[in-house]
Amino acid sequence: MKVRIALAQVNPTVGDIDGNASVMADAVKSAQAQGAGIVAFPELSICGYPPEDLIFSRDFIVRQRDAIENLARLARKAVVIAGFAEEEDGKIYNSAAVMREGRIAAVYRKAALPNYGVFDEKRYFTPGGKATVLRTGRTSAAVNICEDIWVDGGVAETQSLAGDACLIINISSSPFHAGKSVDRRKLVSGRARDLRCFLAYVNLVGGQDELVFDGGSMIASPDGSMLCRAGFFATDMLLADVNLDEALKLRRDPEFAARQSSFKPAWPVPAVNLGPIPDSRIALKPRAAPAEPKSPEEEIYGALVLGTRDYACKNGFTDAVLGLSGGVDSALTAVVAVDALGPSRVHGVAMPSRYSSRGSLEDARALASNAGIDLLEISIEKPFGAYLEVFSGIFAGLKQDETEENIQARIRGNLLMALSNKHDWLVLTTGNKSEISVGYSTLYGDTAGGFAVIKDVFKTMVYRLVDFRNAKGQVPVIARSIIEKPPSAELKPGQTDQDTLPPYDVLDSILRSYIELNLPPSEIAAAHRDSSLVRKVVGMVERSEFKRRQSPPGVKITPLSFGRDRRMPVTNRFRA
Amino acid sequence: MKVRIALAQVNPTVGDIDGNASVMADAVKSAQAQGAGIVAFPELSICGYPPEDLIFSRDFIVRQRDAIENLARLARKAVVIAGFAEEEDGKIYNSAAVMREGRIAAVYRKAALPNYGVFDEKRYFTPGGKATVLRTGRTSAAVNICEDIWVDGGVAETQSLAGDACLIINISSSPFHAGKSVDRRKLVSGRARDLRCFLAYVNLVGGQDELVFDGGSMIASPDGSMLCRAGFFATDMLLADVNLDEALKLRRDPEFAARQSSFKPAWPVPAVNLGPIPDSRIALKPRAAPAEPKSPEEEIYGALVLGTRDYACKNGFTDAVLGLSGGVDSALTAVVAVDALGPSRVHGVAMPSRYSSRGSLEDARALASNAGIDLLEISIEKPFGAYLEVFSGIFAGLKQDETEENIQARIRGNLLMALSNKHDWLVLTTGNKSEISVGYSTLYGDTAGGFAVIKDVFKTMVYRLVDFRNAKGQVPVIARSIIEKPPSAELKPGQTDQDTLPPYDVLDSILRSYIELNLPPSEIAAAHRDSSLVRKVVGMVERSEFKRRQSPPGVKITPLSFGRDRRMPVTNRFRA
Repeated sequence: MKVRIALAQVNPTVGDIDGNASVMADAVKSAQAQGAGIVAFPELSICGYPPEDLIFSRDFIVRQRDAIENLARLARKAVVIAGFAEEEDGKIYNSAAVMREGRIAAVYRKAALPNYGVFDEKRYFTPGGKATVLRTGRTSAAVNICEDIWVDGGVAETQSLAGDACLIINISSSPFHAGKSVDRRKLVSGRARDLRCFLAYVNLVGGQDELVFDGGSMIASPDGSMLCRAGFFATDMLLADVNLDEALKLRRDPEFAARQSSFKPAWPVPAVNLGPIPDSRIALKPRAAPAEPKSPEEEIYGALVLGTRDYACKNGFTDAVLGLSGGVDSALTAVVAVDALGPSRVHGVAMPSRYSSRGSLEDARALASNAGIDLLEISIEKPFGAYLEVFSGIFAGLKQDETEENIQARIRGNLLMALSNKHDWLVLTTGNKSEISVGYSTLYGDTAGGFAVIKDVFKTMVYRLVDFRNAKGQVPVIARSIIEKPPSAELKPGQTDQDTLPPYDVLDSILRSYIELNLPPSEIAAAHRDSSLVRKVVGMVERSEFKRRQSPPGVKITPLSFGRDRRMPVTNRFRA
Repeated sequence: MKVRIALAQVNPTVGDIDGNASVMADAVKSAQAQGAGIVAFPELSICGYPPEDLIFSRDFIVRQRDAIENLARLARKAVVIAGFAEEEDGKIYNSAAVMREGRIAAVYRKAALPNYGVFDEKRYFTPGGKATVLRTGRTSAAVNICEDIWVDGGVAETQSLAGDACLIINISSSPFHAGKSVDRRKLVSGRARDLRCFLAYVNLVGGQDELVFDGGSMIASPDGSMLCRAGFFATDMLLADVNLDEALKLRRDPEFAARQSSFKPAWPVPAVNLGPIPDSRIALKPRAAPAEPKSPEEEIYGALVLGTRDYACKNGFTDAVLGLSGGVDSALTAVVAVDALGPSRVHGVAMPSRYSSRGSLEDARALASNAGIDLLEISIEKPFGAYLEVFSGIFAGLKQDETEENIQARIRGNLLMALSNKHDWLVLTTGNKSEISVGYSTLYGDTAGGFAVIKDVFKTMVYRLVDFRNAKGQVPVIARSIIEKPPSAELKPGQTDQDTLPPYDVLDSILRSYIELNLPPSEIAAAHRDSSLVRKVVGMVERSEFKRRQSPPGVKITPLSFGRDRRMPVTNRFRA
């Protein structure tokens, strides 16, 4: 029994129910025209993911129901599956509507609600309590949602073992971090093999505040092999024919049958009769398999570009502006912005001071020229002089210190924000995760802006991304002089980052151990043979939470980013 | 059977396990010296509340266990009860240790985990599964934690009905909002009456980032009457003798006995034998009942003062600085800061521009003089002129607009931050909730600072708090001219807030309906008979989320504040 499945990897905007519904309607029509028997959309695709506290608006829920009912009218030939937030008796569910012949034939409610990391689903949703299956002709299919297939002994197991589902469609909105797409592929493949079913996994794509959804929708065969996979970091429609008889055959294996007969379902297993899914007579157009990202650099770079583009576009910005210091962070940020928005939409500003080296300004000019963006040059000397004059009496007799450095950074912030206010440009900040971790930044200075492109990228990865991007073009866009100069904030004479911080490879290794691996400082110190350095770095991380709390959002690319992912108190006397 | 109960209303600092333990040790000694048979501390008092993601640090958990075991050694005469985060088999519980004769005699684990509003407890904790009771002589007592008594049919009911507990000790960390202490009193009194038990409720006190815990610990009698209550917004030790025979007598009522015999417990009810609680021979010192706040203004003002003091002190600041515009918001903020830190610790800065009225500077001077704080006067004209010069070519031919207004606000932000950096003063921002709701503020300008004292106070309440504070002193500290002038940002000639915003009584009423009552705009419009105004205001609220995301923390005083309480996406096309 052959079924043509269409996985519609869409890029909705949170809150734009009408706009999302319209894109989904087009996808349903297109998939049906191509003979699809099943068309599936990601988790909460009708409202965008994550909708956060919009869930508490009654209108927001009511309009989703209306939009789903409208979409159902288009479900003529195919069974259409789409995620929406559903209300019943005052409770809200993270649901999948199964639509057929113009109406909602069944609803599945997500059972496993993630409430860790960036997720707050127990804040919003009541868990579903049924492992519903869909009878269709001789076989059964089932739908579940994202986390449902990540938990062992979850609803998918009950649907396959107790409900005889030989096709499971998992609709997901699974955010990106480096390496996760491989985890996802292994998971989907493993579950398909273990449960002897086809597993069609449709993921969201697009950027939403700090999150990027990377797509990579896929269908695994009941032997665990990967049948096909959609593209990454782009909308896609993955069409494939699956022969459910292959699953039926594998399930006849006596061992599996024994497992089925002794299985105790953890949920009730109601069956909804869907009727047969029509087989397609239209030939499936062959397509080249889209390449999976070949390296961490490739996927991280893709996430930065998509996250930046979607943050700008979905918030109504056409153009972005950023300070170009001549350093590697702003150079990478500029190039990402160019790849996201196009060179004519990106505006560089060089803001030299008395402490800027000649080379820095030249490097900024060369970068702008290589990247094809315009460059505005504004000396900060006059405003800086005015501030120094203002404080000459007030600070008389006191030593120059970080105060005077911060004034310069904040002048630059003010200049960029003025350009933003006048031209409605999005200010991109250029701080990397190493700096942000230890608070090596000026609040309202270099942290001032709407989107922090590389906030989750450690400095060592900044260099790797620069090399990756340079290798992509015919000519390296970021010059060697930028890459090779010692990192410096250039806020006082002869300053370099390493006056205050350990070398970045050491710093990043400590930070990764502490923040991402959550190792106790004593263990990290043992590995680094330097407990005072580790204590110093850890102390800097904890003491700079107040800066991060006021910093702009930016793309999450690591398993543990700052933001919703890591909720630390500002007032905190714990010293690990 | 008489028991002397001591409720130790302490003010711990999050993360300062040693410091908190030391305060708690002193309280145990003092309570025992006063003949207490039971000494109870609030929820998670050993680590401070809420510890947020510190919970994921193994060291953080291990050190709490050590501190609790040390505290147990002091439990000689009395039974000591204290909240701590407890690990077992990789799961973390929000627990109460019951300590007696030098060791932990029993542990109760919180069953009801709040995961709404500002709470994320399901992110951290596994719910407990037992309604443990403590047998002591002829009677039983029980301990539970905060939310456990807020839910109907919760663990307290099982402890009383199935476990025969005639004394229930609820240890809480219940954050303040206006009116909540009355809700709490009704709840405690109602549960005590319904469950025919003494209900001793010990609450935390102090400020932690956005939250203030207001104390008001209390003991209710089994007839529902309030036996005694601790003070508000201050540490306290509430000592009272309760005669458990009163509860036993009321429980002999046939109706209650029938309810007990037909009751089906929702949890298992293990009993721990504590042995008799010694009766005290020391006379209880009489004390005057502390007054409950008599008005919303009084309790809100108390919360602002405590929240500001604790944010400053717990983060190591002795002094605060703020801009004094001559307006009512900065005047109120200054007076709160003076009441929190003392006048010699508060520094006012007047930063007039070409658009400041003469009266504004005079009002700022009068306020500083009345409040007893110093006042620095810094004209922003020179830096402003320098910026205008910088942009004279770049913005040539373009109209003046909000850009030039924002430059001024950001100069002020830069000046205050420079003073902060040089002197290690905490910058207090002065924006009220009405402005913050609609984005009537300059990011990195008037929003620049470490703590936003009145961020959750609507403008209409600002005036009420000013009147309240003025009535407290012998002479009004905030002059009539400040109160009576039309609110203005003074960033362009003749500007007033009402050029852009509706009158504040109208605005605040719309905002309260939309944000706190979560009413749909259509209903609000019906009440206000002006749907375009309501639509405009609601749109301003949603479009300014990006500013709030980068704003400093400040005291929560309403049932729904911005921050952890209201988690809205920045990228959001939903228009209610």
